[in-house]
Amino acid sequence: MSADNQQERLDSKWIVGFVDGEGCFHVSINKLQKMTLHCQVLPEFRVVQHQRDEKILYKIQRYFGFGKVTRNHDDRKEFRVRGIKNLNKIVKFFKKYPLKTSKQKNFELFSEIIQLMNKKKHLTKEGLQKIAKLSSQMNRKSRMLESSETIRQNSSE
Amino acid sequence: MSADNQQERLDSKWIVGFVDGEGCFHVSINKLQKMTLHCQVLPEFRVVQHQRDEKILYKIQRYFGFGKVTRNHDDRKEFRVRGIKNLNKIVKFFKKYPLKTSKQKNFELFSEIIQLMNKKKHLTKEGLQKIAKLSSQMNRKSRMLESSETIRQNSSE
Repeated sequence: MSADNQQERLDSKWIVGFVDGEGCFHVSINKLQKMTLHCQVLPEFRVVQHQRDEKILYKIQRYFGFGKVTRNHDDRKEFRVRGIKNLNKIVKFFKKYPLKTSKQKNFELFSEIIQLMNKKKHLTKEGLQKIAKLSSQMNRKSRMLESSETIRQNSSE
Repeated sequence: MSADNQQERLDSKWIVGFVDGEGCFHVSINKLQKMTLHCQVLPEFRVVQHQRDEKILYKIQRYFGFGKVTRNHDDRKEFRVRGIKNLNKIVKFFKKYPLKTSKQKNFELFSEIIQLMNKKKHLTKEGLQKIAKLSSQMNRKSRMLESSETIRQNSSE
């Protein structure tokens, strides 16, 4: 590694601090006809920034050695990790260097889902139900808003 | 320091990462009749979090040994440092451990304003103008919105 690259390399503790602020662990369950149970489980780790700071996203990508920097929406970009192999490395990293905010709880649920997927449990009905339950406990605020929205819609029907 | 406190103590690099995500350096210039130039310069360092994460704000306060944890607005709380003596310590910290995002540029402008205030330049007309110019270059996006708002107001007068 050149001296330049060494200087550029981020520190694990800085990454934890930045992810405590800006990171997101997310699991979506999408309907997909071609899957056995007609459902696809899509876990994802994301760090979103205004495009003026895309450089830092590339530095995070360089630190981990995988993941993709891509457009999030409008003037925002994201560093994104999908795929069980690399997500296992993300889980390993945050087990070694735990988050310090309440985001840690989300991470633990995320980690549990990844373990279930490692055991192919997402391909069984029971496993899928368990994953759906765990994922419903993640990022609670937005989910609660979503469900109150649903309730309002239902009650006005 | 007890073993418990040692475990709880944050790391400088984690703080830099978290502030790169969630911190804010801000300087407001307020009209105040009792001041010599009828203006008060109010520099401030802030970290804002949802109240569910107020614990981490107290940990940051404990790390620095000064500053205040108080309500920001609605369900948000902030760790806030005001007062030139403590802000000099904040500047010293971020000179030792530089920020890695574009927030570093804001910090440099902030630091320059603090240096001018150390020399009491904010009590002179020229100094105040210089500070106003530097502060207008900080947090550009919101300030540009503010000034376009001002332009609209002026043009409609």
